[in-house]
Amino acid sequence: METLKAMATRKSVREFTDEGITFEDIKKILTAGMSGPSCMNKRMWSFVVIRNKELLGKLSVANGLYAGPLRGAALGILVCGDLERALPEAPEYWVIDASIATQNMVLAAQDLGIGSVWLGCWPCEDRVQEVKELMALPENIVPHSILALGYAKEPDNEERDLYESDRVHFDEW
Amino acid sequence: METLKAMATRKSVREFTDEGITFEDIKKILTAGMSGPSCMNKRMWSFVVIRNKELLGKLSVANGLYAGPLRGAALGILVCGDLERALPEAPEYWVIDASIATQNMVLAAQDLGIGSVWLGCWPCEDRVQEVKELMALPENIVPHSILALGYAKEPDNEERDLYESDRVHFDEW
Repeated sequence: METLKAMATRKSVREFTDEGITFEDIKKILTAGMSGPSCMNKRMWSFVVIRNKELLGKLSVANGLYAGPLRGAALGILVCGDLERALPEAPEYWVIDASIATQNMVLAAQDLGIGSVWLGCWPCEDRVQEVKELMALPENIVPHSILALGYAKEPDNEERDLYESDRVHFDEW
Repeated sequence: METLKAMATRKSVREFTDEGITFEDIKKILTAGMSGPSCMNKRMWSFVVIRNKELLGKLSVANGLYAGPLRGAALGILVCGDLERALPEAPEYWVIDASIATQNMVLAAQDLGIGSVWLGCWPCEDRVQEVKELMALPENIVPHSILALGYAKEPDNEERDLYESDRVHFDEW
């Protein structure tokens, strides 16, 4: 799918069919996640692909309100920041690296006809702690976001124009 | 350009030709920036398109080390977070919204044959302050990142495979 079309047709998908996602497509999505720019090329992220249905159910509870779509998803991808790779002079930059990775995966999924919804974890401290505990993540690994992925029950490929001219300034505020 | 190809061919471009970017393409890039998912649909960003060469020069100084490419760029897009739109329960989420917008613009530019380099501003407090002052931004507007955009002096459309299997875990860490 054309890049601009993938962006214009993308919507959050919260209800999925029972169809699984092939390993080939999972790898394409993860490759996209690793293809964004990264601060000083530090690539401050790691990914956990969750296909186990019981674990998806537990994760939907651990990540609080709005994480219900994980229960019907083909899989979840937990995007984490790796603080060991963070820059000493700007450690929070890992948040941006992980956001870039997640957005690339959203678009790659859209390109492959796979729906997704981005479930925020960081900066909600309670979600970060619950997910970290559930997944037994090492000390330096911080949960950032979870993507719930699958084929949309009600596909909607209509393009939207979300441009708002009052959000744009030229040369001065 | 196909979405996955745009991702696989994207590289940071720091040297640009003198060719300008049409308003039509600027609008496509900004539309992409406004087409990503957004926490609770709050769309916590604003954009300043900078075409004035003198201002680009000043901005390259205000944003510190590595911002030199702005001096030769066709234009810069300053991506800002809008704290008035932030969620009271998770205010830092604006950082993710602005990252999504910036990455969508990087990919839209790539799709259009336009090169870019992402110049980090937040979380470097000195850059945030200097840029805020230079651009006379309102109190609630925080500079997040700057994209320098233009046509690459040395175009390189080779695809790269940046997948690293040791960054991926399945069902458990």
